[in-house]
Amino acid sequence: MSGFEPPLDEEAARRLASRLNYRFEINGEPLVVVVTQDVESGKVLMTAFANEEAVYRTLVTGYAHYWSTSRGEIWKKGEDSGHVQRVREVRVDCDEDALLYRVEQEGGACHRGYETCFYRRVTRDGRLSVVEERVFDPDKVYGR
Amino acid sequence: MSGFEPPLDEEAARRLASRLNYRFEINGEPLVVVVTQDVESGKVLMTAFANEEAVYRTLVTGYAHYWSTSRGEIWKKGEDSGHVQRVREVRVDCDEDALLYRVEQEGGACHRGYETCFYRRVTRDGRLSVVEERVFDPDKVYGR
Repeated sequence: MSGFEPPLDEEAARRLASRLNYRFEINGEPLVVVVTQDVESGKVLMTAFANEEAVYRTLVTGYAHYWSTSRGEIWKKGEDSGHVQRVREVRVDCDEDALLYRVEQEGGACHRGYETCFYRRVTRDGRLSVVEERVFDPDKVYGR
Repeated sequence: MSGFEPPLDEEAARRLASRLNYRFEINGEPLVVVVTQDVESGKVLMTAFANEEAVYRTLVTGYAHYWSTSRGEIWKKGEDSGHVQRVREVRVDCDEDALLYRVEQEGGACHRGYETCFYRRVTRDGRLSVVEERVFDPDKVYGR
């Protein structure tokens, strides 16, 4: 009952990518918000932004691509680390300015070594407490 | 095993709100991204932005507040519709520029009448298909 199985062909990917509302302009780049969720565990792994080309590349390759607002370039998740995200389903929100990528995550999504970037919880005294286990050693994966 | 139970006291809420990295400037307002997830079903309900004051109000009241980038003001989710979000847990990401609100959603999160704003899936031909059921009638809740 998967329904959607990237990659899409070029025409279908362009049709979808071009209809979205890239209404968040950061450093001059029109963007949508992307939320990435593990399709099996349901955990929210990370959030990032995408421009039209990043959405298009995600749909035609089946691997999550984003726009790096700090580096000002398209970024394939896991290109260096190998921790790619195979996209199993893409959801679009009501305003068509946000996407939900439901993915199979290789390794972990977080460069700190966790499955999810949201590995810390706010405590009653307004501090942060680590509530997830490391799934890989970031020094080994990202080098020093 | 909840660990976190808003509301926090004012000092704790201010401590947390003031340490975040409000690095996404949209229309002149420094913001973090917020992802909102149903704490029971695990569904991603919506995504939005928050400035420091919206984060603070979320923590001290226990109800989700956001920054509306279109109206340029703080917004308590459900203030008009009654579809409030009781925050059970707040997670912070590695870069401290994104939050995950894990909530109990009253009614539905989406103004179109769905539990989640992500009620449409991308199909193989690059179109959108509704894959969720309506949980309320938006004409009755939001008026005409």
